[in-house]
Formats: sequence, C-alpha cells, structure tokens
Amino acid sequence: MDINKEIAYKASEADRMIYQYLPAEKGYQKTIFAAMNYSVLAGGKRIRPILMIETFKLFGGSSEALAPFVAAMEMIHTYSLVHDDLPAMDNDEIRRGKPTTHAKFGEAIGVLAGDALLNYAFETALGALTIEPDNKAVHRALLVLARKAGVYGMIGGQVVDVESEKQYGISKNRLDFIYQLKTGALIEAAMMIGAILGGATDEEVDKIEQVASKIGLAFQIQDDVLDVIGDQETLGKAVGSDEKNQKATYVIFEGLDKAKQEVADLTKEAIDILQDLPYENPFLTELLRWMVLRDK
Amino acid sequence: MDINKEIAYKASEADRMIYQYLPAEKGYQKTIFAAMNYSVLAGGKRIRPILMIETFKLFGGSSEALAPFVAAMEMIHTYSLVHDDLPAMDNDEIRRGKPTTHAKFGEAIGVLAGDALLNYAFETALGALTIEPDNKAVHRALLVLARKAGVYGMIGGQVVDVESEKQYGISKNRLDFIYQLKTGALIEAAMMIGAILGGATDEEVDKIEQVASKIGLAFQIQDDVLDVIGDQETLGKAVGSDEKNQKATYVIFEGLDKAKQEVADLTKEAIDILQDLPYENPFLTELLRWMVLRDK
Repeated sequence: MDINKEIAYKASEADRMIYQYLPAEKGYQKTIFAAMNYSVLAGGKRIRPILMIETFKLFGGSSEALAPFVAAMEMIHTYSLVHDDLPAMDNDEIRRGKPTTHAKFGEAIGVLAGDALLNYAFETALGALTIEPDNKAVHRALLVLARKAGVYGMIGGQVVDVESEKQYGISKNRLDFIYQLKTGALIEAAMMIGAILGGATDEEVDKIEQVASKIGLAFQIQDDVLDVIGDQETLGKAVGSDEKNQKATYVIFEGLDKAKQEVADLTKEAIDILQDLPYENPFLTELLRWMVLRDK
Repeated sequence: MDINKEIAYKASEADRMIYQYLPAEKGYQKTIFAAMNYSVLAGGKRIRPILMIETFKLFGGSSEALAPFVAAMEMIHTYSLVHDDLPAMDNDEIRRGKPTTHAKFGEAIGVLAGDALLNYAFETALGALTIEPDNKAVHRALLVLARKAGVYGMIGGQVVDVESEKQYGISKNRLDFIYQLKTGALIEAAMMIGAILGGATDEEVDKIEQVASKIGLAFQIQDDVLDVIGDQETLGKAVGSDEKNQKATYVIFEGLDKAKQEVADLTKEAIDILQDLPYENPFLTELLRWMVLRDK
C-alpha cells in the first residue's frame, strides 16, 4: 500500500475513536456543540492521533484508556487552530478550503468553541480514570497531556511566536524554543502518551520523547524549506510567504542547504533511536519519514 | 468579627493556597506568565475558593489534595472573565478599576492568557494525583471540575447567554438554564469538590450540589433585583443597565416582589439542606446568606 493511502486508512481508524466522544448537537447550548464538531470534522490528517495509536501499538498496548486520549489530543490540536485563526491572532477566514470556525459562527462563538474544545479535551481524557481507575499510567498520561499543551508546551511556544512576529532579529535560540514548543510539544505528547498507555518503561518514554522532539523540529524546518522551494500549487500558499511576513526561519539563519541537511540529520537521529528499541512498527517509521520528507 | 472582615481573612487564606501555584515570570514565554498572574491577582473576593475550603472543613477534611483544586478553581473563574472581557465578547476595558487583561497586554495575549489559565488549571489540579495517587476522591473531584467548567456547565451557560443578548423574548426556562450554568456551575463545582475531598458520601455530595445550585440561582436573581433597585454609587454600574441592554431578567419575568421572594426562598431552602447535614460550619452558612443578601 502506498503511504498516503495507508495514512488515510489509519486516519479513519483514529476518526472512529474521536467521533464517539464528540458531543450530541442538542439542548439549549447546541450551537457550541455544532461549532465544536464543525471544527473537529473540518479535516486534518489526524497525524497526532495516528502517532499516539501507532506508538501505543509499538509497545504492544492493549489499554482501553487509549481512545479518550486520542480524542482529547485532536480536540486540543483543533482548539489551538480555532483560536489561532481568530481576528486577534492570524485572522484567517479560510482553512483547508472551508470557512474557519469564527468565520462561520461569529467571533464570540469562535472564542467559546476553542475554550469548549480545550475543556472538553480534559473532560474526555479524564474519563480514562473511570475506565481504568487503578491504572497509574493514566495519571502519567494526563499529566503529560496537560504539561505539553500548556504554558511549558504548546501555548508557551505560541506566545513567543506571536511576540516574535515581524522580527527578523530574534535569536536562533528563540526560534528553536518556538519550534520545539509550538509544534513539537503536541507531537511529543501524542507519542509519549501512546508509549505510556502502551506500557513503556520510564526510560523508553524518555526515548520516545527524544524521537518526537527531533521529528517535530525537523517538521518545522521542512516547513521553512518548503516555503522557499515549494511550488505554489502543491503547497497551497504563496511561496516565500515567510519572507514577505518578515518571519525568522531556519533558512534565513542557516541558508537553504544547511536547513535541508538538518532536516535529514534530525530525521535519521530520530529513526535511529526508534529502531534501537526492542520493538517494531514499520508503519510508524514510515510515517515519521513521511512527516518530514513531504513536499507539501 | 463582622462578615466582611471575616471574608477578607478567609480570602487571604485562599490566596496563600493560590499563590504557590502561580507560575514564575521567567523564560522566553514570560509575557504569558505575567498576563496570567496579572489576571489572577487583579482582585476578586475569592468566593469560589472560600466556598471550596469551607465545605471541605464542614466535612472535617484533611486531604493535602485540596490546595491545587482551590488554585485551579480560581484560575478557571479568572480565565472565564479574561475571555468574557474580550472585544469579541463583552468588550470591557476596565474591571474592578483596573485595565482588563487584553487592554493591558493586547488582544492576542488576552486570548492566550485565557487559554493558558484554563490549561494550567487542569495542570495544577492534576498535580493532586501525584500528591495522593491512591485517593479516588481526587478522580471524582477532577471529573466534577471538568464537567462543571465545560459545555455541560459554565461554558454551556455562557454560550446561551451570548446567543440570548438583546433578546427580551427568551423563555423563562432558557433564562434558568443560563443562570444555573453560567454562574451556578462553578459554585456547584467549588462546594462539591470541597465536599468530595473532605470525605463526604455520594449522597452528601448530592445535597451539597443542591445547596450550591440554589445559592447560585439566588445569587443571579439578586443581581437582577439589584440592577433595578440598587444605588448607582454602591453598585458601581449604571442602575437599570440590564434594561438598557435589553437583557431578559427575573424581574422582567416575575416582577420585583416575586423575584425578591424567590431569592429569600431559595436561600432558605439551601440553608435548610445544609443545616440538615450532621456537621456544622457556621461561617459557611453566613457566607451563603451574605452572597445572596448583599446590597451590591
């Protein structure tokens, strides 16, 4: 099977887990349910849920507590996009060819739908405590989810990114911080939670965190590379938009060749660590490669 | 001691619990820490934390898991105010005589500070799992926190409130729904979590939920009453502002006398249920009375 088809199949597997946790659109507050479901169903490749499921499989996991975390992960990713698109933030009216949540439901509901998805993510993940009350791995997974989504994770990266806009002059360390937290943190959370619930030891969870961190960073640098070399049609956004937006990127810091080399090095390092573990999941390895070596 | 002094003293007790969980303002993302702390420290009477602590005391609680929940409760209340004040929502630049979070830090940081406080509330409360890993009351408390803060609680009420603005024509049932959820849900959560961590039985937690629900509703109806009869100076907002804003209120539905009677009835019912329990906390009873029978 080619990788794109396989990913689409895995996404449908993830969707089955996610959909069962989406709220029914009824009651006085049905608008918020509609806005939440609209946002989650608006598409996306379900990369984070798939990473969680496949890392879980890598460790031979069988816990029933996985599904609520898979759903929670996608809700958190989705809320971050909903708030990112708000007029006060990136002010985007269209995402993946569809009106963004606030464009469709109004700005107040846009704010509240993001809040609702974030809160509901925790409500959903906490349900795992009811499924397996004596499984301490659920405790660890909840703590990782909260930490990596918050101010020491995704939100932390997001804040520094907002403050660094229109600044070529930020340091390389600051750019690393943004990349590691804004995108990297949720990728780390996805793989770490899969490992934890799958039965990994603490040492193995640390290794998975390293794998995810390197892949997350490679993913972001590849974004910078594609912004410069990508083709407008395949990429779906104006090529060179980072430069137009006066955005600091790896390409600006290092030049195109070194940035490309860094993507390749980070990917190799990540996959070496993964393959050093005494378990195998060839699809997961392919997925990590695909995430960074994509051309769009 | 008079009740206002006693509340101020209890608030300082709550603040000691809350402050230890506020983030240090350092690192690349220090702006978000500053915005979070600014929002939490901007004042407020700490009613929800005090309700949690005093209900905990009512049941003779001694769990170390209380403090993180007290802090989390105030963070959730605070985030809801930060997002409520945004231009897309109520568009308030001043709260309690100080610039609102977005007025001080900009709108993007206003959105992110709310997100950060909500996520950090769960991160903080989840810390209780580390303090008492084998205390199942912590599981129940986490689930109540998430449920009452979310779409079946506060956010649900908030959404319907936003949709009902400038509508005299909403039904009484719809107004009840808004009142019970928008303000009531967090008051319920505060008292229920105090009871759960304090060692209450399921039946006692249900009774505490009823107490909180009645007090929450009485609190809101009293707001409507004060809007009509209050004195501009003591109330600090334009009297009759609800009417100017074309807001449906209990006074509009029932008239002033019946609304006043309902506040008195609900308060009596709540206190009767509380005093029927085989425990005593006279301050808690006074606090509930004070919450609804205030004149501002």
